Amino acid sequence: MRACRTALLLALVIPQCLRAEDGYELWLRYRPLEAEWRSTYREAVRSLVVPQSGSPTLRAARGELLRGLEGLLGAVPASAREAGEGALLLGTPETSARIADLKLPLKPLGEEGYLIRRVDTDRGAAIVIAANSDIGVLYGTFHFLRLLQTRTALANLDIVSRPRIQLRLLNHWDNLDRSVERGYAGQSLWDWWRLPDYLDPRYTDYARANASIGINGTVLNNVNASADSLTSRYIAKAAALADVFRPYGIRVYLSARFSAPVEIGGLDTADPLEPAVRAWWKAKAAEIHAAIPDFGGFLVKANSEGQPGPQDYGRSHADGANMLAEALRPYGGAVMWRAFVYSDTNPEDRAKQAYSEFKPLDGRFADNVILQVKNGPIDFQPREPFHPLFGAMPATNLMLELQITKEYLGFDTHLVYLGTLFEEVLDADTCAGSSGRCGEGAVVASVIDGSLHGYRRTGIAGVANIGTDRDWSGSIFNQANWYAFGRLAWNPDLSARSIAEEWLRMTFTANKRFVAPAAGMMLRSRQAAVDYMTPLGLAHLMGTDHHYGPAPWVDHLARPEWNPVYYHRADREGIGFDRTAEGTGAVSQYAPPLARRFGNRNAVPEDYLLWFHHLPWDYPMASGRDLWAELVHRYDRGVAEVRAMAETWAGLESFVDAERFYKTARFLEIQKREARWWRDASIAYFRAVSGRPLPAGAREPARPLEAYRALQFPRGAGN
Amino acid sequence: MRACRTALLLALVIPQCLRAEDGYELWLRYRPLEAEWRSTYREAVRSLVVPQSGSPTLRAARGELLRGLEGLLGAVPASAREAGEGALLLGTPETSARIADLKLPLKPLGEEGYLIRRVDTDRGAAIVIAANSDIGVLYGTFHFLRLLQTRTALANLDIVSRPRIQLRLLNHWDNLDRSVERGYAGQSLWDWWRLPDYLDPRYTDYARANASIGINGTVLNNVNASADSLTSRYIAKAAALADVFRPYGIRVYLSARFSAPVEIGGLDTADPLEPAVRAWWKAKAAEIHAAIPDFGGFLVKANSEGQPGPQDYGRSHADGANMLAEALRPYGGAVMWRAFVYSDTNPEDRAKQAYSEFKPLDGRFADNVILQVKNGPIDFQPREPFHPLFGAMPATNLMLELQITKEYLGFDTHLVYLGTLFEEVLDADTCAGSSGRCGEGAVVASVIDGSLHGYRRTGIAGVANIGTDRDWSGSIFNQANWYAFGRLAWNPDLSARSIAEEWLRMTFTANKRFVAPAAGMMLRSRQAAVDYMTPLGLAHLMGTDHHYGPAPWVDHLARPEWNPVYYHRADREGIGFDRTAEGTGAVSQYAPPLARRFGNRNAVPEDYLLWFHHLPWDYPMASGRDLWAELVHRYDRGVAEVRAMAETWAGLESFVDAERFYKTARFLEIQKREARWWRDASIAYFRAVSGRPLPAGAREPARPLEAYRALQFPRGAGN
Repeated sequence: MRACRTALLLALVIPQCLRAEDGYELWLRYRPLEAEWRSTYREAVRSLVVPQSGSPTLRAARGELLRGLEGLLGAVPASAREAGEGALLLGTPETSARIADLKLPLKPLGEEGYLIRRVDTDRGAAIVIAANSDIGVLYGTFHFLRLLQTRTALANLDIVSRPRIQLRLLNHWDNLDRSVERGYAGQSLWDWWRLPDYLDPRYTDYARANASIGINGTVLNNVNASADSLTSRYIAKAAALADVFRPYGIRVYLSARFSAPVEIGGLDTADPLEPAVRAWWKAKAAEIHAAIPDFGGFLVKANSEGQPGPQDYGRSHADGANMLAEALRPYGGAVMWRAFVYSDTNPEDRAKQAYSEFKPLDGRFADNVILQVKNGPIDFQPREPFHPLFGAMPATNLMLELQITKEYLGFDTHLVYLGTLFEEVLDADTCAGSSGRCGEGAVVASVIDGSLHGYRRTGIAGVANIGTDRDWSGSIFNQANWYAFGRLAWNPDLSARSIAEEWLRMTFTANKRFVAPAAGMMLRSRQAAVDYMTPLGLAHLMGTDHHYGPAPWVDHLARPEWNPVYYHRADREGIGFDRTAEGTGAVSQYAPPLARRFGNRNAVPEDYLLWFHHLPWDYPMASGRDLWAELVHRYDRGVAEVRAMAETWAGLESFVDAERFYKTARFLEIQKREARWWRDASIAYFRAVSGRPLPAGAREPARPLEAYRALQFPRGAGN
Repeated sequence: MRACRTALLLALVIPQCLRAEDGYELWLRYRPLEAEWRSTYREAVRSLVVPQSGSPTLRAARGELLRGLEGLLGAVPASAREAGEGALLLGTPETSARIADLKLPLKPLGEEGYLIRRVDTDRGAAIVIAANSDIGVLYGTFHFLRLLQTRTALANLDIVSRPRIQLRLLNHWDNLDRSVERGYAGQSLWDWWRLPDYLDPRYTDYARANASIGINGTVLNNVNASADSLTSRYIAKAAALADVFRPYGIRVYLSARFSAPVEIGGLDTADPLEPAVRAWWKAKAAEIHAAIPDFGGFLVKANSEGQPGPQDYGRSHADGANMLAEALRPYGGAVMWRAFVYSDTNPEDRAKQAYSEFKPLDGRFADNVILQVKNGPIDFQPREPFHPLFGAMPATNLMLELQITKEYLGFDTHLVYLGTLFEEVLDADTCAGSSGRCGEGAVVASVIDGSLHGYRRTGIAGVANIGTDRDWSGSIFNQANWYAFGRLAWNPDLSARSIAEEWLRMTFTANKRFVAPAAGMMLRSRQAAVDYMTPLGLAHLMGTDHHYGPAPWVDHLARPEWNPVYYHRADREGIGFDRTAEGTGAVSQYAPPLARRFGNRNAVPEDYLLWFHHLPWDYPMASGRDLWAELVHRYDRGVAEVRAMAETWAGLESFVDAERFYKTARFLEIQKREARWWRDASIAYFRAVSGRPLPAGAREPARPLEAYRALQFPRGAGN
């Protein structure tokens, strides 16, 4: 700070500027606006009126405004006590008599919403950012800064916004050794070794970034949890983080290992009906709340993929979840119980197991339990139909779990914008409204915002893509997925396109000649990944363990559902997983009209064709091609799209600083190569299985199948 | 870059400046100088004359000059073709006719040295930075910038500098999964997964930092090596790094796993006398050199701590090293063969084993082998006497291995300046000159610079303390240890004090009111660590595996020399390791006059007292205290010194930016607590063992011994 002031005095500012942009500032760069906008906004914001004795949250709002306006406008408006012409007035009716006097319609905003409005005071026109709580003011402040960042006219400003979903959380799959499961952006941000003594300034920037998009909670540790995270040593560390996050409205949650009473509690059982176990969890909840008064609650992965759980003691998921809910009840905390379960002994279609397990338990969960359901019934594949539990649990709070980190979508290096994936899920029609008909708004978003079934607790979680990499997310464009998650969590009705454009304007430049092509690239990118990895409803064809690259041939793993061949079921005759009534009957888990549509090979969307149907290779497709030719066509389409993306990016060089341009360009080269690899290896394999020749004109795979099968990737990223 | 130009145009420079200093820029911050210095230097440097068609190295020198002068002086001198008054003239006689015309005495500079001199040309006074090679020019450029950074008068400038030691290397104990053995600064810088496709800009900054202090080589991977690092996949990645480093004069080396011919070569033996094995290494060397033409060579840890080696086949270290030397000979590369060996079956005093093993092999190593010897005979303890191999191998190239990372010196958080440790080692008198007398300059530095024995190859290695942490080294003051290593590697005669002061001026401020107290703190810090950890020649008393905190009580590990009790040998009667003729006789490995001094309890320096002697608790010390009271006194002295350091730092707040001040202050708090912990736990233990009461006035340990013994540190840093 001091050094910089010196620099300013001397007008010696070049060294700071020579530093290339490295992505650290995310979408909060606050670079100077064009001259016209600058003078317009300076005119509109001449003074700041912020309550004097502010809470840490209000101080954060004021600090962000100063930072933002200083950057965007090159000048900080004067602080004032009274709102006059050009005043920007912040606060709540409790903290600001001026705002109370305005008698704004704040009631509908709830605890987190805000209002931004142009108002006429007796001394002139002002802009007010008002809310019922300080955190609402902070959210409104970020919104106001976003208006400036995206060059929005402030005349007739009248914005009312409140979040549709209560819990908007990141799930960090971060381990206590700072490794991150499925993390492709360096180590965990949480520097457990130095906590609680040393607080990395980055924790504050993490909180700022999340608050700017409305995220209000973070689960610090991996769902494959170590019980150690519940020891007093680690509670103290989590509490230090909670102290940093609190002013930004972000609560801390922990993943709880179900067997912790045995592992760190000295008990010989973790049976949820055992009084000593219940007492242990109550005491643990009390201990945590003593250190973290606003602790949010537990996330639990139980009886899934080898994790301990209530079934180890012959108890149900409801027994387990309700025990933890009881421990948290005095503090208002929530238990987020994951529905991602499949048994290592159950021969049932993996896609059916979660529904089979949980549907019978509907209504048996305590009201502070929320069942956390992944978007699709398998596991974050490039494309899945929505999870059949959505719409099927009217008496159980359900929340949606999305994956922001790209475990199955090219890791850090592939440019795949997930806004469209998230949008597709949120907009999916469950057809589970009271009418039993489709097209009446019973979409997944209306399930998780509570409106469809009247849930008392609502939530959405995103598995974070954040690490110590300087750019936070492993690539610049991965930042857009974090951003899109937060924006959609606040308002599921936003479009993936509008979010992409907004993010591009804030992250790069508002120049249309940049935004239009870059947004086009983003919006097509997820379909491209589907095409070059798993077209037409295929899924789970990636390498074992590390999940890197194609491996449709894998058939030797112990459990059937660990093997890609389980999912594609390709043979000489055809390909696809028959989930119709003639197959596993998974379609019946959807509402009747959907079950009929998905179960009918002629009605099912082609995007889900092989998810629900096993079809002969010569099955005629809408395109006029047969299935085999269509499959090859889709692979080629995906490869071509990535090539086009790289070309598009190359043409945008003049709009982007060198460092971020170079990184993105290099990653697109990797993506081009890997898209080709996916295409070639998959086609080589399916050709061998089907015995069919390549369709006319299709390019021969670059290498023989055996070469692809022989590839090894020790030390795969994120594994 | 572009965005910044816009910022300048608009004079909107505040946002860049708001960013606190995070330590990333190390000692190359180039912040604006005070006005007087600025005008003096601007006067002296009005134009730059750099050869037009420069090599990448010359371009790097020019780029660094522009960056530095822009930052320090706020203005870039004009580029000129002819040297006039105020010209800064760079180049070699080959690349610059002007420099050739000056007929400077460049011959003695060798390949890497440089000359910086004020010269009178027919057009006025100029400054010339001249060398025989471009890398000499780059080194001279960094020296010149350092003169400015440290506010040195340029009148009568006449500097001649050349490195005393040929190989000045960092050893990275970095694994291919990006973990760093004994690393406390984040992950490995080498992003193997994204290499060679993506080159992190940080690689260039790493090279700049190293070149600025004369480091000319880097061993990329851990001495506990994976054979995979020698596969073509990883060679391509190493080659990409070598391409980045090359302009900065930094060669890449690899740690080689001796059993690689078996593990990745498909052979059934790695016997160094087996023709197929020799052929495999020759082919491997050829493959590496095809990708990295200036590959530096191999570092090998063999038959040590479970690593494979020639003894597995009944061959000697010389057999193993010479085989690799033969493979590298066509390319001029070196084999650095580590002398850090102790057998898991040998009952001999661990301190003696390396000497016993290697002394008989003197003269049997090929001339491109260098034996790499740690500074002391055990393992980087807070203080050890110098290694007895120094001075004992006149017919074998020896190089010195120092540890920059603080494995045994408080990890990242303790402020321990190692310049004094390095200096102590380099200045240690081996008494091994031809006269056989002490005091005649036969110091360790004269062994490793080759002057004492006429070595053909000379070298020094530092185990790096560098990782992905934003500040590179885990703490700001740890940067000084990297810096001091490089400066001493170039010139072992520099004083630890002058280096500390220089570093402080470049890293923080030249203000004397800051530099004097901060340097004092640094210079006393290593003795403080010795005092609170292992006073009076004690060693190896730390926790098992992670090496964190005190554990003098550990006695249960399988091998005797893994246990702290092996080293302190404390019992009811006394404490210390008898290495005199009556004990293990280790003193006899030193030159006779030293053997006599070390073997005499009255003559041995107190710093090494318990290293060489087992003494009764009431042994009278020079202070007048008995040994037990002196021991407690030393512990207390160390704790008090850390308290004083924290107070000193607190008083320096006004000189330091907030972020670096806070981090250092918090770390000093950790150090205070841990110094106290070391003191308390050690005294509680030795009191119990000795049965002695605390000396009068000594503070009771904060907790009972059992509490210290019960502490557990799973996931210890760097382990």
